Amino acid sequence: MSGLNDKAVVLLSGGLDSATTMAVARSRGFRCFALTVDYGQRHRLEIDAARRVASALEAERHLVLSYDLRPIGGSALTNNIEIPKGERSEGIPVTYVPARNTLLLSLALAWAEVLGAWDIFIGANAVDYSGYPDCRPEFIDAYSCLANMATAAAAQERGTFKIHAPLIEMKKSEIILTGIELGVDYSITSSCYDPGPKGRACGRCDSCRLRLRGFEEAGVKDPIPYSS
Amino acid sequence: MSGLNDKAVVLLSGGLDSATTMAVARSRGFRCFALTVDYGQRHRLEIDAARRVASALEAERHLVLSYDLRPIGGSALTNNIEIPKGERSEGIPVTYVPARNTLLLSLALAWAEVLGAWDIFIGANAVDYSGYPDCRPEFIDAYSCLANMATAAAAQERGTFKIHAPLIEMKKSEIILTGIELGVDYSITSSCYDPGPKGRACGRCDSCRLRLRGFEEAGVKDPIPYSS
Repeated sequence: MSGLNDKAVVLLSGGLDSATTMAVARSRGFRCFALTVDYGQRHRLEIDAARRVASALEAERHLVLSYDLRPIGGSALTNNIEIPKGERSEGIPVTYVPARNTLLLSLALAWAEVLGAWDIFIGANAVDYSGYPDCRPEFIDAYSCLANMATAAAAQERGTFKIHAPLIEMKKSEIILTGIELGVDYSITSSCYDPGPKGRACGRCDSCRLRLRGFEEAGVKDPIPYSS
Repeated sequence: MSGLNDKAVVLLSGGLDSATTMAVARSRGFRCFALTVDYGQRHRLEIDAARRVASALEAERHLVLSYDLRPIGGSALTNNIEIPKGERSEGIPVTYVPARNTLLLSLALAWAEVLGAWDIFIGANAVDYSGYPDCRPEFIDAYSCLANMATAAAAQERGTFKIHAPLIEMKKSEIILTGIELGVDYSITSSCYDPGPKGRACGRCDSCRLRLRGFEEAGVKDPIPYSS
Protein backbone atom coordinates (compact mmCIF):
# COMPACT_ATOMS: atom_id res chain seq x y z
CA MET A 1 0.00 0.00 0.00
CA SER A 2 1.25 3.42 -0.92
CA GLY A 3 2.65 5.39 1.97
CA LEU A 4 2.93 2.37 4.27
CA ASN A 5 5.21 3.30 7.14
CA ASP A 6 6.14 6.54 5.43
CA LYS A 7 6.06 9.68 7.51
CA ALA A 8 3.55 12.43 6.83
CA VAL A 9 3.12 15.83 8.43
CA VAL A 10 -0.56 16.52 9.05
CA LEU A 11 -1.83 20.02 9.77
CA LEU A 12 -4.20 19.53 12.68
CA SER A 13 -6.38 22.38 13.89
CA GLY A 14 -8.65 20.30 16.07
CA GLY A 15 -11.63 20.87 13.80
CA LEU A 16 -13.74 18.35 11.95
CA ASP A 17 -11.89 18.63 8.63
CA SER A 18 -8.36 18.23 9.95
CA ALA A 19 -9.36 15.30 12.18
CA THR A 20 -10.84 13.56 9.14
CA THR A 21 -7.74 14.40 7.11
CA MET A 22 -5.52 12.77 9.71
CA ALA A 23 -7.72 9.67 9.69
CA VAL A 24 -7.40 9.53 5.89
CA ALA A 25 -3.60 9.85 6.13
CA ARG A 26 -3.53 6.98 8.61
CA SER A 27 -5.81 4.85 6.44
CA ARG A 28 -3.32 5.34 3.61
CA GLY A 29 -0.63 3.85 5.84
CA PHE A 30 1.23 7.00 6.85
CA ARG A 31 2.85 7.52 10.24
CA CYS A 32 1.41 10.90 11.18
CA PHE A 33 3.34 13.82 12.64
CA ALA A 34 0.66 16.27 13.68
CA LEU A 35 1.38 20.01 13.55
CA THR A 36 -0.84 22.54 15.30
CA VAL A 37 -0.26 26.27 15.23
CA ASP A 38 -1.62 28.48 17.98
CA TYR A 39 -1.69 31.70 15.98
CA GLY A 40 -3.66 33.74 18.49
CA GLN A 41 -7.03 32.67 17.11
CA ARG A 42 -10.05 33.48 19.22
CA HIS A 43 -11.13 29.89 19.19
CA ARG A 44 -8.20 28.56 21.18
CA LEU A 45 -10.25 25.66 22.42
CA GLU A 46 -9.23 24.23 19.05
CA ILE A 47 -5.75 23.65 20.48
CA ASP A 48 -7.13 21.41 23.23
CA ALA A 49 -9.23 19.63 20.63
CA ALA A 50 -6.11 19.12 18.49
CA ARG A 51 -4.37 17.44 21.45
CA ARG A 52 -7.30 15.09 21.92
CA VAL A 53 -7.44 14.23 18.22
CA ALA A 54 -3.66 13.70 17.96
CA SER A 55 -3.86 11.31 20.87
CA ALA A 56 -6.99 9.48 19.65
CA LEU A 57 -5.55 9.02 16.16
CA GLU A 58 -2.17 7.95 17.56
CA ALA A 59 0.11 10.63 16.14
CA GLU A 60 3.79 9.67 16.23
CA ARG A 61 4.40 13.17 17.52
CA HIS A 62 2.34 16.30 18.03
CA LEU A 63 4.12 19.62 17.68
CA VAL A 64 2.27 22.74 18.85
CA LEU A 65 3.86 25.99 17.75
CA SER A 66 2.87 29.35 19.17
CA TYR A 67 3.17 31.94 16.42
CA ASP A 68 1.00 34.88 17.21
CA LEU A 69 -0.40 36.37 14.02
CA ARG A 70 -2.21 39.17 15.86
CA PRO A 71 0.52 41.78 15.24
CA ILE A 72 -0.08 41.27 11.50
CA GLY A 73 -3.81 41.75 11.91
CA GLY A 74 -6.46 41.74 9.26
CA SER A 75 -8.81 39.01 10.44
CA ALA A 76 -11.81 38.58 12.71
CA LEU A 77 -10.28 35.30 13.90
CA THR A 78 -7.26 37.02 15.41
CA ASN A 79 -8.34 40.60 15.91
CA ASN A 80 -11.05 42.59 17.50
CA ILE A 81 -13.54 42.37 14.67
CA GLU A 82 -16.97 40.90 15.32
CA ILE A 83 -17.52 37.33 14.14
CA PRO A 84 -20.52 37.34 11.81
CA LYS A 85 -23.53 35.29 12.89
CA GLY A 86 -26.51 34.20 10.86
CA GLU A 87 -26.79 34.30 7.11
CA ARG A 88 -23.56 34.46 5.15
CA SER A 89 -22.66 37.61 3.34
CA GLU A 90 -21.20 37.57 -0.16
CA GLY A 91 -17.49 37.31 -0.95
CA ILE A 92 -14.53 36.50 1.25
CA PRO A 93 -15.56 36.75 4.90
CA VAL A 94 -13.84 38.73 7.67
CA THR A 95 -12.76 35.45 9.25
CA TYR A 96 -10.24 35.04 6.43
CA VAL A 97 -6.72 35.11 7.94
CA PRO A 98 -4.29 36.64 5.42
CA ALA A 99 -2.08 33.97 3.85
CA ARG A 100 -2.88 31.53 6.65
CA ASN A 101 -2.69 28.30 4.68
CA THR A 102 0.50 29.50 3.02
CA LEU A 103 2.03 30.01 6.45
CA LEU A 104 0.74 26.72 7.82
CA LEU A 105 2.02 24.79 4.81
CA SER A 106 5.40 26.53 5.10
CA LEU A 107 5.76 25.40 8.70
CA ALA A 108 4.66 21.90 7.71
CA LEU A 109 7.19 21.93 4.89
CA ALA A 110 10.01 22.99 7.22
CA TRP A 111 9.16 20.23 9.67
CA ALA A 112 8.73 17.65 6.89
CA GLU A 113 12.19 18.46 5.61
CA VAL A 114 13.69 17.99 9.08
CA LEU A 115 11.80 14.72 9.61
CA GLY A 116 12.64 13.34 6.17
CA ALA A 117 8.93 13.25 5.27
CA TRP A 118 7.72 13.93 1.71
CA ASP A 119 4.00 14.01 2.33
CA ILE A 120 1.99 16.84 3.86
CA PHE A 121 -1.74 16.64 4.56
CA ILE A 122 -4.03 19.63 4.86
CA GLY A 123 -7.80 19.64 5.40
CA ALA A 124 -8.48 22.37 2.84
CA ASN A 125 -11.90 22.14 1.27
CA ALA A 126 -13.19 23.99 -1.77
CA VAL A 127 -16.84 22.95 -1.73
CA ASP A 128 -18.53 23.87 1.52
CA TYR A 129 -15.68 26.22 2.37
CA SER A 130 -16.16 29.77 3.51
CA GLY A 131 -14.86 31.43 0.36
CA TYR A 132 -11.20 31.30 1.34
CA PRO A 133 -8.86 31.64 -1.67
CA ASP A 134 -6.22 29.41 -0.09
CA CYS A 135 -8.55 26.42 -0.03
CA ARG A 136 -8.78 26.09 -3.81
CA PRO A 137 -7.17 23.20 -5.74
CA GLU A 138 -5.06 25.65 -7.78
CA PHE A 139 -3.59 27.01 -4.57
CA ILE A 140 -2.62 23.49 -3.46
CA ASP A 141 -1.02 22.87 -6.87
CA ALA A 142 0.95 26.13 -6.72
CA TYR A 143 2.17 25.25 -3.23
CA SER A 144 3.34 21.79 -4.36
CA CYS A 145 5.33 23.44 -7.10
CA LEU A 146 6.91 25.86 -4.65
CA ALA A 147 7.71 23.16 -2.09
CA ASN A 148 9.82 21.32 -4.60
CA MET A 149 11.76 24.50 -5.33
CA ALA A 150 12.18 25.80 -1.80
CA THR A 151 14.00 23.08 0.06
CA ALA A 152 17.43 21.54 0.22
CA ALA A 153 15.85 18.08 0.18
CA ALA A 154 14.09 18.76 -3.11
CA ALA A 155 16.99 20.74 -4.63
CA GLN A 156 19.23 17.74 -4.05
CA GLU A 157 16.59 15.58 -5.73
CA ARG A 158 16.26 13.29 -2.76
CA GLY A 159 12.51 13.09 -3.38
CA THR A 160 9.38 15.04 -4.25
CA PHE A 161 7.08 16.76 -1.82
CA LYS A 162 3.40 16.08 -2.23
CA ILE A 163 0.67 18.21 -0.69
CA HIS A 164 -2.39 16.06 -0.05
CA ALA A 165 -5.76 17.74 0.33
CA PRO A 166 -7.99 14.65 0.41
CA LEU A 167 -11.15 16.57 1.34
CA ILE A 168 -10.80 19.29 -1.23
CA GLU A 169 -13.63 18.13 -3.49
CA MET A 170 -15.88 16.68 -0.77
CA LYS A 171 -19.10 18.10 0.60
CA LYS A 172 -19.18 18.49 4.38
CA SER A 173 -21.57 15.54 4.66
CA GLU A 174 -19.18 13.34 2.68
CA ILE A 175 -16.31 14.40 4.95
CA ILE A 176 -18.34 13.39 7.99
CA LEU A 177 -19.35 10.03 6.52
CA THR A 178 -15.73 9.35 5.53
CA GLY A 179 -14.54 10.16 9.05
CA ILE A 180 -17.19 7.99 10.66
CA GLU A 181 -16.18 5.08 8.45
CA LEU A 182 -12.57 5.61 9.57
CA GLY A 183 -13.58 5.74 13.24
CA VAL A 184 -13.18 9.46 13.91
CA ASP A 185 -14.81 10.51 17.16
CA TYR A 186 -16.26 13.91 16.29
CA SER A 187 -17.24 14.54 19.90
CA ILE A 188 -13.61 15.53 20.61
CA THR A 189 -13.34 18.03 17.74
CA SER A 190 -14.07 21.76 17.88
CA SER A 191 -15.19 23.91 14.96
CA CYS A 192 -16.77 27.06 16.38
CA TYR A 193 -15.13 30.42 15.63
CA ASP A 194 -16.58 32.00 18.75
CA PRO A 195 -17.29 29.47 21.52
CA GLY A 196 -19.16 30.51 24.67
CA PRO A 197 -17.66 30.67 28.18
CA LYS A 198 -18.02 26.94 28.81
CA GLY A 199 -16.55 26.15 25.40
CA ARG A 200 -19.93 25.43 23.88
CA ALA A 201 -20.16 25.99 20.14
CA CYS A 202 -22.29 29.02 19.25
CA GLY A 203 -24.17 27.25 16.47
CA ARG A 204 -24.44 30.47 14.49
CA CYS A 205 -21.04 31.37 13.03
CA ASP A 206 -20.15 30.23 9.48
CA SER A 207 -18.14 27.32 10.77
CA CYS A 208 -20.89 26.01 13.09
CA ARG A 209 -23.50 26.43 10.38
CA LEU A 210 -21.48 24.49 7.83
CA ARG A 211 -20.83 21.77 10.38
CA LEU A 212 -24.45 21.46 11.47
CA ARG A 213 -25.69 21.38 7.89
CA GLY A 214 -23.09 18.71 7.09
CA PHE A 215 -24.27 16.47 9.94
CA GLU A 216 -27.87 17.04 8.93
CA GLU A 217 -27.19 16.09 5.31
CA ALA A 218 -25.21 13.06 6.46
CA GLY A 219 -28.17 11.98 8.57
CA VAL A 220 -26.00 11.82 11.70
CA LYS A 221 -26.34 13.70 14.97
CA ASP A 222 -23.48 16.08 15.74
CA PRO A 223 -22.15 14.79 19.10
CA ILE A 224 -20.88 18.16 20.42
CA PRO A 225 -23.03 20.46 22.61
CA TYR A 226 -24.25 23.79 21.29
CA SER A 227 -25.28 26.81 23.29
CA SER A 228 -28.13 27.72 20.96
CA MET B 1 8.69 56.87 -11.31
CA SER B 2 7.41 53.36 -10.74
CA GLY B 3 6.42 52.62 -7.17
CA LEU B 4 6.40 56.25 -6.09
CA ASN B 5 4.51 56.49 -2.80
CA ASP B 6 3.47 52.86 -3.08
CA LYS B 7 3.90 50.69 -0.04
CA ALA B 8 6.36 47.83 0.00
CA VAL B 9 7.08 45.21 2.64
CA VAL B 10 10.83 44.70 2.99
CA LEU B 11 12.27 41.66 4.75
CA LEU B 12 14.98 43.11 6.93
CA SER B 13 17.38 40.83 8.79
CA GLY B 14 19.87 43.50 9.75
CA GLY B 15 22.54 42.08 7.48
CA LEU B 16 24.31 43.71 4.58
CA ASP B 17 22.05 42.29 1.86
CA SER B 18 18.71 43.23 3.39
CA ALA B 19 19.93 46.74 4.26
CA THR B 20 20.95 47.23 0.63
CA THR B 21 17.63 45.79 -0.53
CA MET B 22 15.73 48.31 1.57
CA ALA B 23 17.84 51.13 0.17
CA VAL B 24 17.03 49.90 -3.36
CA ALA B 25 13.30 49.79 -2.54
CA ARG B 26 13.47 53.36 -1.26
CA SER B 27 15.41 54.50 -4.32
CA ARG B 28 12.58 53.09 -6.44
CA GLY B 29 10.17 55.34 -4.56
CA PHE B 30 8.53 52.82 -2.25
CA ARG B 31 7.40 53.60 1.29
CA CYS B 32 9.02 50.75 3.19
CA PHE B 33 7.36 48.62 5.84
CA ALA B 34 10.22 46.63 7.33
CA LEU B 35 9.58 43.12 8.65
CA THR B 36 12.08 41.34 10.89
CA VAL B 37 11.59 37.85 12.25
CA ASP B 38 13.35 36.75 15.40
CA TYR B 39 13.24 33.03 14.71
CA GLY B 40 15.58 31.99 17.49
CA GLN B 41 18.69 32.40 15.39
CA ARG B 42 22.00 32.30 17.21
CA HIS B 43 22.96 35.64 15.75
CA ARG B 44 20.26 37.65 17.49
CA LEU B 45 22.38 40.75 17.35
CA GLU B 46 20.93 40.90 13.85
CA ILE B 47 17.65 42.04 15.41
CA ASP B 48 19.33 45.08 16.96
CA ALA B 49 21.02 45.76 13.65
CA ALA B 50 17.63 45.53 11.90
CA ARG B 51 16.26 48.19 14.24
CA ARG B 52 19.16 50.50 13.45
CA VAL B 53 18.79 49.96 9.71
CA ALA B 54 15.00 50.46 9.77
CA SER B 55 15.53 53.74 11.56
CA ALA B 56 18.43 54.93 9.38
CA LEU B 57 16.53 54.13 6.18
CA GLU B 58 13.34 55.71 7.52
CA ALA B 59 10.95 52.76 7.50
CA GLU B 60 7.31 53.79 7.70
CA ARG B 61 6.95 51.00 10.24
CA HIS B 62 9.14 48.22 11.58
CA LEU B 63 7.40 45.05 12.70
CA VAL B 64 9.47 42.52 14.65
CA LEU B 65 7.82 39.12 15.02
CA SER B 66 9.09 36.48 17.41
CA TYR B 67 8.48 33.09 15.84
CA ASP B 68 10.82 30.56 17.33
CA LEU B 69 11.83 27.99 14.74
CA ARG B 70 13.93 25.99 17.21
CA PRO B 71 11.20 23.42 17.93
CA ILE B 72 11.28 22.52 14.24
CA GLY B 73 15.05 22.14 14.31
CA GLY B 74 17.34 21.10 11.50
CA SER B 75 19.77 24.02 11.30
CA ALA B 76 23.02 25.17 12.84
CA LEU B 77 21.58 28.70 12.96
CA THR B 78 18.84 27.72 15.37
CA ASN B 79 20.06 24.55 17.01
CA ASN B 80 23.02 23.21 18.82
CA ILE B 81 25.10 22.31 15.79
CA GLU B 82 28.54 23.84 15.41
CA ILE B 83 28.82 26.73 12.96
CA PRO B 84 31.51 25.82 10.42
CA LYS B 85 34.56 28.05 10.31
CA GLY B 86 37.20 28.31 7.62
CA GLU B 87 37.02 26.80 4.15
CA ARG B 88 33.58 26.01 2.83
CA SER B 89 32.52 22.45 2.42
CA GLU B 90 30.59 21.26 -0.63
CA GLY B 91 26.81 21.31 -0.97
CA ILE B 92 24.14 22.90 1.15
CA PRO B 93 25.64 23.98 4.49
CA VAL B 94 24.37 23.16 7.98
CA THR B 95 23.43 26.82 8.40
CA TYR B 96 20.55 26.21 5.97
CA VAL B 97 17.26 26.80 7.85
CA PRO B 98 14.55 24.53 6.38
CA ALA B 99 12.08 26.50 4.26
CA ARG B 100 13.18 29.77 5.86
CA ASN B 101 12.65 32.08 2.92
CA THR B 102 9.30 30.44 2.23
CA LEU B 103 8.26 31.23 5.77
CA LEU B 104 9.63 34.77 5.69
CA LEU B 105 7.92 35.52 2.39
CA SER B 106 4.66 34.08 3.71
CA LEU B 107 4.74 36.44 6.68
CA ALA B 108 5.62 39.33 4.37
CA LEU B 109 2.73 38.34 2.11
CA ALA B 110 0.27 38.26 5.01
CA TRP B 111 1.38 41.70 6.17
CA ALA B 112 1.37 43.09 2.63
CA GLU B 113 -2.21 41.94 2.19
CA VAL B 114 -3.25 43.68 5.41
CA LEU B 115 -1.39 46.87 4.48
CA GLY B 116 -2.70 46.94 0.93
CA ALA B 117 0.85 46.62 -0.44
CA TRP B 118 1.59 44.67 -3.63
CA ASP B 119 5.37 44.71 -3.53
CA ILE B 120 7.63 42.59 -1.36
CA PHE B 121 11.41 42.94 -1.28
CA ILE B 122 13.80 40.19 -0.22
CA GLY B 123 17.61 40.28 -0.22
CA ALA B 124 18.02 36.80 -1.70
CA ASN B 125 21.19 36.35 -3.67
CA ALA B 126 22.10 33.49 -5.98
CA VAL B 127 25.69 34.40 -6.85
CA ASP B 128 27.85 34.64 -3.74
CA TYR B 129 25.19 32.81 -1.78
CA SER B 130 25.91 29.92 0.52
CA GLY B 131 24.21 27.26 -1.58
CA TYR B 132 20.71 27.84 -0.22
CA PRO B 133 17.99 26.51 -2.56
CA ASP B 134 15.54 29.24 -1.55
CA CYS B 135 17.80 31.98 -2.89
CA ARG B 136 17.51 30.93 -6.53
CA PRO B 137 15.59 32.97 -9.14
CA GLU B 138 13.30 30.01 -9.88
CA PHE B 139 12.29 29.93 -6.22
CA ILE B 140 11.38 33.63 -6.33
CA ASP B 141 9.33 33.03 -9.49
CA ALA B 142 7.49 30.09 -7.92
CA TYR B 143 6.73 32.19 -4.86
CA SER B 144 5.32 35.04 -6.98
CA CYS B 145 3.02 32.56 -8.66
CA LEU B 146 1.85 31.23 -5.31
CA ALA B 147 1.34 34.70 -3.82
CA ASN B 148 -1.14 35.54 -6.53
CA MET B 149 -3.08 32.36 -5.82
CA ALA B 150 -2.98 32.44 -2.02
CA THR B 151 -4.62 35.68 -1.02
CA ALA B 152 -8.04 37.27 -1.00
CA ALA B 153 -6.56 40.43 -2.47
CA ALA B 154 -5.25 38.58 -5.52
CA ALA B 155 -8.26 36.26 -5.82
CA GLN B 156 -10.48 39.32 -6.08
CA GLU B 157 -8.14 40.67 -8.76
CA ARG B 158 -7.49 43.86 -6.86
CA GLY B 159 -3.86 43.75 -8.01
CA THR B 160 -0.82 41.54 -8.54
CA PHE B 161 1.84 40.74 -5.97
CA LYS B 162 5.41 41.14 -7.08
CA ILE B 163 8.36 39.64 -5.24
CA HIS B 164 11.43 41.81 -5.83
CA ALA B 165 14.85 40.28 -5.31
CA PRO B 166 16.98 43.13 -6.64
CA LEU B 167 20.29 41.62 -5.51
CA ILE B 168 19.69 38.15 -6.86
CA GLU B 169 22.16 38.37 -9.74
CA MET B 170 24.73 40.65 -8.06
CA LYS B 171 28.14 39.72 -6.72
CA LYS B 172 28.71 40.73 -3.08
CA SER B 173 31.05 43.51 -4.20
CA GLU B 174 28.36 44.91 -6.52
CA ILE B 175 25.84 44.81 -3.67
CA ILE B 176 28.23 46.80 -1.48
CA LEU B 177 28.95 49.38 -4.18
CA THR B 178 25.22 49.73 -4.86
CA GLY B 179 24.54 50.28 -1.18
CA ILE B 180 27.31 52.83 -0.81
CA GLU B 181 25.94 54.76 -3.76
CA LEU B 182 22.52 54.75 -2.05
CA GLY B 183 24.02 55.94 1.23
CA VAL B 184 23.80 52.72 3.24
CA ASP B 185 25.87 52.88 6.42
CA TYR B 186 27.30 49.36 6.65
CA SER B 187 28.73 50.04 10.09
CA ILE B 188 25.26 49.47 11.57
CA THR B 189 24.69 46.11 9.84
CA SER B 190 25.51 42.68 11.24
CA SER B 191 26.29 39.59 9.16
CA CYS B 192 28.13 37.11 11.41
CA TYR B 193 26.50 33.75 12.13
CA ASP B 194 28.38 33.38 15.41
CA PRO B 195 29.39 36.71 16.96
CA GLY B 196 31.69 36.83 19.98
CA PRO B 197 30.67 37.97 23.48
CA LYS B 198 31.01 41.67 22.69
CA GLY B 199 29.08 41.23 19.47
CA ARG B 200 32.22 41.28 17.34
CA ALA B 201 31.97 39.40 14.05
CA CYS B 202 34.01 36.18 14.03
CA GLY B 203 35.50 36.80 10.59
CA ARG B 204 35.59 33.08 9.86
CA CYS B 205 32.02 31.79 9.29
CA ASP B 206 30.63 31.59 5.73
CA SER B 207 28.75 34.82 6.14
CA CYS B 208 31.76 36.80 7.44
CA ARG B 209 34.00 35.38 4.73
CA LEU B 210 31.58 36.32 1.95
CA ARG B 211 31.21 39.79 3.42
CA LEU B 212 34.94 40.37 3.84
CA ARG B 213 35.70 39.14 0.34
CA GLY B 214 32.95 41.41 -1.02
CA PHE B 215 34.45 44.49 0.63
CA GLU B 216 37.90 43.49 -0.56
CA GLU B 217 36.71 43.10 -4.16
CA ALA B 218 34.82 46.38 -3.92
CA GLY B 219 38.02 48.09 -2.75
CA VAL B 220 36.28 49.41 0.36
CA LYS B 221 37.10 48.84 4.03
CA ASP B 222 34.42 46.96 5.98
CA PRO B 223 33.49 49.40 8.78
CA ILE B 224 32.51 46.77 11.39
CA PRO B 225 34.97 45.39 13.97
CA TYR B 226 36.12 41.76 13.77
CA SER B 227 37.47 39.63 16.58
CA SER B 228 40.01 37.88 14.38
